[in-house]
Amino acid sequence: MSFGTMTMAAFEGVPLSQLFPEEKLGWNGYVEWEDKPDRKEIARRILATKEFTPSPEFQLEPLPKTNPVLIGYRWKEYHEALGLQRIVDFSWETVQKEKPDMIHLLDFPYNGETPRKPLMEGKITDNKYHFVRNHGGIPDIDEDAFELEIGGLVNTPVKLTMKDLKDASRFPQKEVTVTLQCSGTRRIEQIQEYPGEGDELIQAPWGEGAMYALHTSHPEHIADMHTGVQWNSRLPGVTLKKVLKVACGGLKSEARHLEFLGADTYFKKGNVFNYAVSVSSRKVRNQGGEEVLLAWEMNGKPLPKIHGFPLRVVVTGVIGARSTKWLYKINAIEEPSLGPVQSQEYLYYNIQIGKHNSKYSNGFSIQNMPVSSAIIFPQDKEVIIHDGHVELSGWAYSGGGNWPERVEVSPDGGHVWYAVDPADMTEKHYHAWRLWKISVPVNAEGWIEFCARTWDSSCNTEPTFVRSAWNWDLHVTSSCHRIKLYSINRTKPETKARLEQYAARGESMTPITKTTKYGLENMDEYLAKMRTFPGSRGPRTECLGSSLGGDAA
Amino acid sequence: MSFGTMTMAAFEGVPLSQLFPEEKLGWNGYVEWEDKPDRKEIARRILATKEFTPSPEFQLEPLPKTNPVLIGYRWKEYHEALGLQRIVDFSWETVQKEKPDMIHLLDFPYNGETPRKPLMEGKITDNKYHFVRNHGGIPDIDEDAFELEIGGLVNTPVKLTMKDLKDASRFPQKEVTVTLQCSGTRRIEQIQEYPGEGDELIQAPWGEGAMYALHTSHPEHIADMHTGVQWNSRLPGVTLKKVLKVACGGLKSEARHLEFLGADTYFKKGNVFNYAVSVSSRKVRNQGGEEVLLAWEMNGKPLPKIHGFPLRVVVTGVIGARSTKWLYKINAIEEPSLGPVQSQEYLYYNIQIGKHNSKYSNGFSIQNMPVSSAIIFPQDKEVIIHDGHVELSGWAYSGGGNWPERVEVSPDGGHVWYAVDPADMTEKHYHAWRLWKISVPVNAEGWIEFCARTWDSSCNTEPTFVRSAWNWDLHVTSSCHRIKLYSINRTKPETKARLEQYAARGESMTPITKTTKYGLENMDEYLAKMRTFPGSRGPRTECLGSSLGGDAA
Repeated sequence: MSFGTMTMAAFEGVPLSQLFPEEKLGWNGYVEWEDKPDRKEIARRILATKEFTPSPEFQLEPLPKTNPVLIGYRWKEYHEALGLQRIVDFSWETVQKEKPDMIHLLDFPYNGETPRKPLMEGKITDNKYHFVRNHGGIPDIDEDAFELEIGGLVNTPVKLTMKDLKDASRFPQKEVTVTLQCSGTRRIEQIQEYPGEGDELIQAPWGEGAMYALHTSHPEHIADMHTGVQWNSRLPGVTLKKVLKVACGGLKSEARHLEFLGADTYFKKGNVFNYAVSVSSRKVRNQGGEEVLLAWEMNGKPLPKIHGFPLRVVVTGVIGARSTKWLYKINAIEEPSLGPVQSQEYLYYNIQIGKHNSKYSNGFSIQNMPVSSAIIFPQDKEVIIHDGHVELSGWAYSGGGNWPERVEVSPDGGHVWYAVDPADMTEKHYHAWRLWKISVPVNAEGWIEFCARTWDSSCNTEPTFVRSAWNWDLHVTSSCHRIKLYSINRTKPETKARLEQYAARGESMTPITKTTKYGLENMDEYLAKMRTFPGSRGPRTECLGSSLGGDAA
Repeated sequence: MSFGTMTMAAFEGVPLSQLFPEEKLGWNGYVEWEDKPDRKEIARRILATKEFTPSPEFQLEPLPKTNPVLIGYRWKEYHEALGLQRIVDFSWETVQKEKPDMIHLLDFPYNGETPRKPLMEGKITDNKYHFVRNHGGIPDIDEDAFELEIGGLVNTPVKLTMKDLKDASRFPQKEVTVTLQCSGTRRIEQIQEYPGEGDELIQAPWGEGAMYALHTSHPEHIADMHTGVQWNSRLPGVTLKKVLKVACGGLKSEARHLEFLGADTYFKKGNVFNYAVSVSSRKVRNQGGEEVLLAWEMNGKPLPKIHGFPLRVVVTGVIGARSTKWLYKINAIEEPSLGPVQSQEYLYYNIQIGKHNSKYSNGFSIQNMPVSSAIIFPQDKEVIIHDGHVELSGWAYSGGGNWPERVEVSPDGGHVWYAVDPADMTEKHYHAWRLWKISVPVNAEGWIEFCARTWDSSCNTEPTFVRSAWNWDLHVTSSCHRIKLYSINRTKPETKARLEQYAARGESMTPITKTTKYGLENMDEYLAKMRTFPGSRGPRTECLGSSLGGDAA
């Protein structure tokens, strides 16, 4: 099935590079599809002649323990079939340069998850560690050659250069702290419970980690977008509302949605597209427009190529998929975008919907993200030696302008809940997570189940079990996050003695499945105990006089 | 770590074959240990000089998909270290001859699980398919050379040949239908939830299947032990009670337990033993003695070598480990056997007991088996296309002389339960399972959780979840058996249409994680539906007049 070197340099005698050109100087890796129906049709015909490697099976099979975890053969082959192999190559080069230390869930289109440690190091994630969920290859666009086109149902269609956008005298700049969250966050929990849709664009097995049982969560954190009126000269973003008003004289009255087109190439069931999604104009107007920003910096540094350089949109409080990268066109439209990412994906299905009956119209489109949280430390299946308290830390988030109000942790599977002290949570934002930590009293030993849940500013909390909100496309795993810990409580005399025994022998307690070569108990002590508590051998007195001699046979 | 060919032919100049001889003519593969403390001590010293390959990790890792599933390197090396490699070889030859079609969970000591189909073919399992849980190698004993020694606290110690035992004029014979159950049955469910003890004698990952997610249960079924007074001439067994009385003149008054020694060699933490367990004399007397039999046939055929030829004891209603194979000695004793299998294993721990605090005295010894059941068909994670009813079948068992009275199946994770019609259960026995089948109404589609539970003749039923009775040594998985099925209900119009679409295209619905290359819905139909139910796009009326023009920026 490997596509291998079977490249097709031409189609019906015309070179692919001529059929699917990078027309704009300085815009490498960008092919226009949405304005070119004939071009799309030729691509469809080429794709129809080929067989592509199926997506790897990883839901009914264990996840590979490799890094990259999954290889995107199919998506690479799509690009190769259209003569766009160079996009694949540039994308991986960019990953190695900009994101060398990630958990590479999928090599192409690149999906990278933040390791646990940097995730929890500060309330703002370093750019190098922001999660990435790309839907196509990474374009390589020269900022000076770039222009943003705004058209459709606007009063005045315009083209704006980066210089125009960065002109603070035209477009005042905003500062906001934002968490972007992929609707696939913690998806691995859904997969582990029940396999679901195995889309051609892999439903990546996001965890809170990703390497096997060691998973890390990964809200993408775009933060500290300082304005031009700040003390420093960083010029990070402007509201889309202001751009539409100032540059375009506002929307026409029939406009209801803003469609965002990205320069990346997207494939769906034999057809090719530019990445396209939309948000409602209502969202663009909200809160003085601060909910939808056009951004060119992240945390005081230029937007990395992998995150959308030179320009991306940042839509707060909703699924990350709306925050289009390499944003080159905005269309004001009457109805939501029919781009596959908007209309055919990121749908939230009832649990009875699946391969046997799913349609694009019988799931609802995921917009605002619900309240959710995760325990990042300790990790699932860790062995914890403690003195009656276990320390936990993690994140809590709610979309739609809500903020996490209270985080609770249960050490007993969800019966008793301990609230995190407000002093142990990072500060509130309208559109960003809060990190938290807590020390929970734990008496019990052996395997115990911890879970965390958050209550947000609208009193919403999380579904109880993964099953409570499992859905075919494996989106929005917002149920109480549950981890299994093996508790070893040093305050218990027998445990303390056993630990000392292990230490004296230089023996490790882990892995717990490895047995010791020493006996667990002196047999004299065992016998003494058995003779004191004969219950385990049956009642003592009634056992007397049981000679078979006197019994009838 | 591989022990490889590093055999030790001698110890301190004495050949191993002389140190650990097969002394009795016609008793191959049997070395006496329990009567030979000096021999045991030499073996201990030899074992102490060596490192052995650790047991394979399979609890924190996925199970290998091989058959044999696990390789018993360590146990082979123990035998090899004492010059007993021929026992290892003979054991595997015997497996291939007597049990060619099993799921070989562990090659040595041999652990073999019955595949699903033969398990459910009749109420009596064919000898070829009885499960096997051996604790050592398989001895090869000549029936004519064999003798059973009975000693200890009996009035008259004796030795009995097989001819003596088969003399129906001395020992009248009994017929009983018996299910033997390993306390490891369905262990895989405990392992999948939480890893536990990884003993040097592997806690085999018994399922109801064993190959990966496809596991079959495996009560060992010893049945139809016809008596000499029956119409046929098969002479299968006698009660131990009668043998003790007739041959030994009964027990001395201080005797409380009967210890059974098997000719197989057993290792535990650097020491060597013969297999030894015990039952109380009260058990031996129960019900006219029919609860403890000495048996030499299984279902009208000679006992297979792998099951204990020429003689084994069959203890009804209790953990299979008491039914010693290759039984060569019975000791009447005051206290339960101190053999490791009796005193140090098959202990049932509180969930807080584990590697950090387990002792031999803080779990109780497993004797009677509780009520339990399993769904055998369908299997976990199967895709079921049906017309509103799903057929299920399985087994139900209870130990201690109880019988399964009612089997119930839930199609919704344990909320609504349907009772199996008594006509769809096999007949009752005091000591055997009942097979059952049921057709359950199922409306719901997608992933649903079925579970089964049994109520026995003492009104006992099963714990609700695996967690409810999880224990460190991973014994007695008697919780409601739960399986996940993907339901496709052909009576639903949308599902019917999708199935027809797949059939017309010659496309398979399975695996469900494999996506189709066709669109899920015609986009015109999609749009029509979206325009009729704009709810999924936000309220319709309130979206009007949202031009940005008139808004304050």
